[in-house]
Amino acid sequence: MRSGTVPLVYRQEPILRYQDGQLLEPRVDDVATEEALEIRVEGELLAVAMRTPGHDAELAAGWVLSEGIVSRGDEIADIVTRPGDDPRAAMVDVMLRHPAGFEAAKYRRAALSNASCGVCGAASVEQALKSFPKIDSAFLISANVISLLPDRLRASQPTFQRTGGLHACGLFDGEGNLLALREDVGRHNALDKLLGWALLAGKIPLSESVLLLSGRVSFEMVQKALAAGIPILVAIGAPSSLAIDAARLGGLTLAGFLRGSSFNVYSGEKKVRGAGAKISPTNAPTPRKP
Amino acid sequence: MRSGTVPLVYRQEPILRYQDGQLLEPRVDDVATEEALEIRVEGELLAVAMRTPGHDAELAAGWVLSEGIVSRGDEIADIVTRPGDDPRAAMVDVMLRHPAGFEAAKYRRAALSNASCGVCGAASVEQALKSFPKIDSAFLISANVISLLPDRLRASQPTFQRTGGLHACGLFDGEGNLLALREDVGRHNALDKLLGWALLAGKIPLSESVLLLSGRVSFEMVQKALAAGIPILVAIGAPSSLAIDAARLGGLTLAGFLRGSSFNVYSGEKKVRGAGAKISPTNAPTPRKP
Repeated sequence: MRSGTVPLVYRQEPILRYQDGQLLEPRVDDVATEEALEIRVEGELLAVAMRTPGHDAELAAGWVLSEGIVSRGDEIADIVTRPGDDPRAAMVDVMLRHPAGFEAAKYRRAALSNASCGVCGAASVEQALKSFPKIDSAFLISANVISLLPDRLRASQPTFQRTGGLHACGLFDGEGNLLALREDVGRHNALDKLLGWALLAGKIPLSESVLLLSGRVSFEMVQKALAAGIPILVAIGAPSSLAIDAARLGGLTLAGFLRGSSFNVYSGEKKVRGAGAKISPTNAPTPRKP
Repeated sequence: MRSGTVPLVYRQEPILRYQDGQLLEPRVDDVATEEALEIRVEGELLAVAMRTPGHDAELAAGWVLSEGIVSRGDEIADIVTRPGDDPRAAMVDVMLRHPAGFEAAKYRRAALSNASCGVCGAASVEQALKSFPKIDSAFLISANVISLLPDRLRASQPTFQRTGGLHACGLFDGEGNLLALREDVGRHNALDKLLGWALLAGKIPLSESVLLLSGRVSFEMVQKALAAGIPILVAIGAPSSLAIDAARLGGLTLAGFLRGSSFNVYSGEKKVRGAGAKISPTNAPTPRKP
């Protein structure tokens, strides 16, 4: 089995860290890599996985097993992997021992998204990244308000309290007042529900609001926020590398790892005001901790 | 906008709870509901979301916004929701103000899975549930071994330690020895990589092993475990309602909410041995705590 370059499962990113409303010294953080992988069987594109690079041949093998395309390892003749022309779109192709019986159309037609997939929605990854509307909003938020949001989300999340099994996303105004909250077993679904509420209420673009996610931030979650014109996305979990790339490209402020009074800012730091900073719509730089 | 019956976002399930290796009295637990929803635009099936029922019209509205099908609420003329013939397959149909410009094929072709989707892989949800291979294994595990697994997974998860951003799944033998571990930003990907490793190594079916998931258990994760012939799935997070249904249908032992020495068993309790129980391949009933 041929293989491409050795992938990095994480990469280092410069971040800003806030604690107790104060900006700390800049630092470098490790973030998990997320990149698109085309999954092909006999050359036919069947799915695009937003995955962490590495073990791509195994990923494709497990995928064809789960899809019922094969049931034993010896039904696979070879697995070819290569980086794509766009480094974000690598490819893996499963060659079958008996390709005559394989009907690609059956699996391609069936392989609908189990949530909306940003990258898959465009002809190529590159095109998806180019199609982002750039955020244009003078909206600012204070670091202290960001730190309040997780508790306010949890206090309003009745079903999670009962089941422990739901993702949540909440929309807040600049003072940290909850505007809307949705829960779902799928985090993409929870965000789609929240954005759908705003769309049907005529509130798009959401240019004066902050989105809080209960979990981690993938590329698709950033893309959905950009589609709704949300200027600031904060999350209790960590962002992926591609989420950070997309946020920077789209002009989205992205903060993660909210823990007590501390969090990291990965993109768009000018919209976050540290303690003591002047409130200014001109996005004055945040002060450094002495 | 017409709407179907009022959905329940959680349902109550009888469970068995273990603590310190001992079976406690049976109890009832709330689990988050997961059911399939067909998302249609102008009658054309574009995606299947595995979602928690409720706010289905908003889910579809947010989905068409994220996909770029609409950018404003007034581009939507109506949203029709109804339960499907199979109660697990409800439907929501977005009717556009100007349907002439809508090309369904563009979105359907593009709506590839961002991970393999079990339900979407079959002609219907019902068919997907019927196609499970029933687990046939005399494999047993002790409650004390189950409680050891999360720490052993974490100790072997180097990238998560660095980034905090990865899902993990691990395969263990009956004594709790780690056989293989995979991490990924996507939990479906992590499991596909693990199963692909087993497939390529000729180890399918994995009838003598326990699968541990770092997060929650959805229908699709159960389906993948069944595809690989794994008899026991345990998770640090909670299972969804459909995950429990699928586990029971497939003969899979499903445990969740691993916290310290306690966990819940949702399905296949005969494969879990409490302290003091006789080790027997005939699946003797587990003893109750006195």
